[in-house]
Amino acid sequence: MKRSIGAQTVAYPTPVWVVGTYDGKGKANVMTAAWVGICSSKPPCVAVSLRQATHTYEGILKRQAFSINVPSESHVKVVDYFGLVSGKRVDKFAATGLKPVRCDFVDAPYVAEFPLILECRVIHSIEIGLHSQFIGEIMDVKADEALLGEKGLPDIEKVKPIVFGPEILTYHGLGKYLGQAFSIGKEL
Amino acid sequence: MKRSIGAQTVAYPTPVWVVGTYDGKGKANVMTAAWVGICSSKPPCVAVSLRQATHTYEGILKRQAFSINVPSESHVKVVDYFGLVSGKRVDKFAATGLKPVRCDFVDAPYVAEFPLILECRVIHSIEIGLHSQFIGEIMDVKADEALLGEKGLPDIEKVKPIVFGPEILTYHGLGKYLGQAFSIGKEL
Repeated sequence: MKRSIGAQTVAYPTPVWVVGTYDGKGKANVMTAAWVGICSSKPPCVAVSLRQATHTYEGILKRQAFSINVPSESHVKVVDYFGLVSGKRVDKFAATGLKPVRCDFVDAPYVAEFPLILECRVIHSIEIGLHSQFIGEIMDVKADEALLGEKGLPDIEKVKPIVFGPEILTYHGLGKYLGQAFSIGKEL
Repeated sequence: MKRSIGAQTVAYPTPVWVVGTYDGKGKANVMTAAWVGICSSKPPCVAVSLRQATHTYEGILKRQAFSINVPSESHVKVVDYFGLVSGKRVDKFAATGLKPVRCDFVDAPYVAEFPLILECRVIHSIEIGLHSQFIGEIMDVKADEALLGEKGLPDIEKVKPIVFGPEILTYHGLGKYLGQAFSIGKEL
């Protein structure tokens, strides 16, 4: 039996990604975001929704670029911290000891310690309501060499990305392998 | 040491959601999508990117509505099947024995057997490239009563959503609890 729980942002799972930008003064900044996802294959793009009040919003507007930094579960505390404080008041890299590195293809910094990085340039933006969505074309992907698996792609079980549960506000790890996409459904 | 692997849609994790629509003839259809995510809190919205060649794209254009059906890991084979075949040729509900139910708030069907349902009406659309993105305002959320936890919200560990690894094309379950968001970072 289904029960209506009203109109709210309850949909599982969402990613937990960290968005890297330079602000107006050139300071490297990061924030954690879960209203994010891949949104196009050709060109390869991600969508990132942010409140206009964030320091990251200002940074993206000015530089028209951002990085997506995929954390591992071992980074979960620092990832939560990146979502708790504002880059308007705090240098989050200095506060955590993580190292900002300038992207090769876009005007944004990435987090050296995180395993998987996407360099993105803004190609669309749309005001939805409380959040504005930026669509960034992926100009390059970088991964820690030790995490590369078959076909030269990052092994998700080595990356150990963080999974988020909206509204219930819980972080989870990646669970057991269930099967291969575009394959296991052929049995039906 | 980081290695560049080029511009591609590699970013972990993404959701695995099933999109429900009526087609031009009123037939209930479903497709699996991973280029999806929450994109706004107020109004509560999700973004869904689809290729224009899909039957679902046509259905959304005509009805300006869709459902998001969050599957459990036990549904992984049928979810993969929903992404393998086109509703242009196949009645996917009939083929799998799952039951379509008309949404209460929008002109779309949902999958009765899936644990968590979002009823969405289209408020924006944007052509990105191979994919078009529809932004749907969440008009209602429905959850199986047995899965509701504290505060009346669905317990993610009971829902058991599926997690996807783009490019490597693997399905995974939800992993272990890592901590509470907007909380564990305060220790830093």
